[in-house]
Amino acid sequence: MSDVRRKTEAARTASKRLATAPAEEKNTALETIARTLREEQDSILECNSEDLRKGEEAGISPALADRLKLTETRLEEMARGLEELTRLPDPVGEVMERTERENGLRIEKVRVPLGVIGMIYEARPNVTVDAAGLALKTGNAVVLRGSSSAYRSNARLVEIIRKSLALTPLPRDAVQLVEDPDREAVREMLHSNGRIDVIIPRGGAGLIQRVVRESTVPVLETGVGNCHIYVDRSADPEMAGRIVLNGKTDRPAVCNAVETLLIHREWADHHLHELGEALLTAGVEIRGCPRTRDRFSRAVPAHDTDWEKEYLDRILAVRVVDSLNEAMEHIDRYGTRHSEAIVTEDAEAARRFLQEVDAAAVYHNASTRFTDGSQFGFGAEIGISTQKLHARGPMGLKELTSCKYRVLGSGQVR
Amino acid sequence: MSDVRRKTEAARTASKRLATAPAEEKNTALETIARTLREEQDSILECNSEDLRKGEEAGISPALADRLKLTETRLEEMARGLEELTRLPDPVGEVMERTERENGLRIEKVRVPLGVIGMIYEARPNVTVDAAGLALKTGNAVVLRGSSSAYRSNARLVEIIRKSLALTPLPRDAVQLVEDPDREAVREMLHSNGRIDVIIPRGGAGLIQRVVRESTVPVLETGVGNCHIYVDRSADPEMAGRIVLNGKTDRPAVCNAVETLLIHREWADHHLHELGEALLTAGVEIRGCPRTRDRFSRAVPAHDTDWEKEYLDRILAVRVVDSLNEAMEHIDRYGTRHSEAIVTEDAEAARRFLQEVDAAAVYHNASTRFTDGSQFGFGAEIGISTQKLHARGPMGLKELTSCKYRVLGSGQVR
Repeated sequence: MSDVRRKTEAARTASKRLATAPAEEKNTALETIARTLREEQDSILECNSEDLRKGEEAGISPALADRLKLTETRLEEMARGLEELTRLPDPVGEVMERTERENGLRIEKVRVPLGVIGMIYEARPNVTVDAAGLALKTGNAVVLRGSSSAYRSNARLVEIIRKSLALTPLPRDAVQLVEDPDREAVREMLHSNGRIDVIIPRGGAGLIQRVVRESTVPVLETGVGNCHIYVDRSADPEMAGRIVLNGKTDRPAVCNAVETLLIHREWADHHLHELGEALLTAGVEIRGCPRTRDRFSRAVPAHDTDWEKEYLDRILAVRVVDSLNEAMEHIDRYGTRHSEAIVTEDAEAARRFLQEVDAAAVYHNASTRFTDGSQFGFGAEIGISTQKLHARGPMGLKELTSCKYRVLGSGQVR
Repeated sequence: MSDVRRKTEAARTASKRLATAPAEEKNTALETIARTLREEQDSILECNSEDLRKGEEAGISPALADRLKLTETRLEEMARGLEELTRLPDPVGEVMERTERENGLRIEKVRVPLGVIGMIYEARPNVTVDAAGLALKTGNAVVLRGSSSAYRSNARLVEIIRKSLALTPLPRDAVQLVEDPDREAVREMLHSNGRIDVIIPRGGAGLIQRVVRESTVPVLETGVGNCHIYVDRSADPEMAGRIVLNGKTDRPAVCNAVETLLIHREWADHHLHELGEALLTAGVEIRGCPRTRDRFSRAVPAHDTDWEKEYLDRILAVRVVDSLNEAMEHIDRYGTRHSEAIVTEDAEAARRFLQEVDAAAVYHNASTRFTDGSQFGFGAEIGISTQKLHARGPMGLKELTSCKYRVLGSGQVR
């Protein structure tokens, strides 16, 4: 039996116990894991140093090394994240709807765990702890598959989580790490129908596309964000500048950062030059359409492919448009349905943009950077869904649950 | 450009108009279609006769011919179904959640259509009208692919629907029928990511498994039901008999019919013989485990494969078990997570069964036949989901929607 098969079956068995675990047991388990993470800090950092050393030998980029690196602060954040989960209400068991039919049948729609979650992710070892915590809180087992570059860190973290679970009534098999981080293990996970209920990929577009293409297990697609800000004719110049700079420079490497700026021609005539200078000063490269470059000569030319790119970097594509309609058509054509914003003082333009633009989150006069579980008040987040089925936008605890119908009768037949 | 490509693109374009269509426009369209169906009754029945004649030439089974056949009554039911949809509330635009954050951002979670639904189904031409009606009501476009045996009937029905739409402000391209009903068209639909948002297969296990295996578009898996009734030690004999007979014989060919009966040994000692006779009288073949046959010699032997079968016929597998746990283990191993029932007077046994059995619908002292949108009070149903993601159990109007977050700011940045 393969490693993946064995672990997914163990997770499936553990998930049955977890599904009926009371909230206190799950919270105690999360606290135990948090405590052990702090106690075992040194051994975790040691394993992480080893990953980093191997990575540097293999010539990984400084950006990747940064994502891979654990520090005392980052470990403390992970432990605190688990403790915060204990303070959130347990979604499992909630009666979502209740009806009594004319024949006397009482029907209750009850929230239940999904079962077994498969996580396939890259680099950041904090996902290991975050995902395990969210899964346990929601009564799900989890099968983790991180990247080879973080293997030692992930293995140590999962060892600690499982050791902690062994101190509680919850089954340690609820958290599994797939051992051989090769592509064959991923392939096997993607076809574990009946043993894994949902696959959540987190990482670059390549990983996510591969998972969507290959998986026969249902997938929660996350994250690719080619986000736009449209600065309308009537936009307040100071506000527009602030939102664009924040959207691009606050954290360029994340999915809710803005990648293309669309500007109404009239606004561009008066304010594009000043905004361009501010962006350059903030270290942003501007790739502009011809009409952008007419108004701001320090922009480099944009190519057609620029409209499709998620730069995840200090680069911004800029296009001047003639109307709200043209802006919305551009977004419809190139957007990834993640986060889209309009800056305008015109209420009717805002209303149309919010209604007609098809995206997980649509903004009026605010930065796209707010598309985030904690900013939305969910308390925790496992990713941002860009699909329409099951979950859309930031996914919190409820998005890791399903439902079942409980029907109570007294002998009814049809 | 292929037929599927052209039609999915036309549907995608139409879906944008539909997404913002007011409830009255959608209801008027449904009424117009219902009226035209009645007016065009003769031409529809003529096309259907042609399908039936070709089918008989090709030697289709009487059961398939019955599913394929349209009558005045069935057409009238289809028209009434559309009219009933107009009386249900429009789910689109509903504000599901609303919060105001400390920074003043107002966040609204709003219900929106899914976009474009792909339906792949077999035989029954009423699905053509039902699916188009449900899609239009929920602001979705739909791409239909029925079976070749019903092609003329489906083509005529879709022609009438599109002709009716042309009399309303809604785009006729909202309803599309894939012309060439070959397997290549299905393959293309299953890979129409970006043009189809969800695929719903309706039909036999073979069709559904093919769709789940091949589709890169998210799938709502429907229907396969290997349903069980467990008659517990303390079950009321009269009630148990009534529920078992109803579950098996009311409509054996549907997914919520019971396929395997599990009986506690002690109940079997006293009542199995009588129940067996009643089932035989009702024309049911009983395939029993050795302990069943010890108690009821007219049962034929069950083979291991019988526990996995969805007979969809007047055949019932029967197994005697020693305990509730053994019954639940059997269901966990062989069930398809559709509908599972316990008959018992023991409240604790009922509580455990309802909590621990993993299925879309779990019943205490009622027939599995109730798993159905209209029985649950949903007013309409597009199928019964046996997956855990997005929708579980009978899927009504809400299950054909997604959501988006509308974020209203006054210049907020992070």
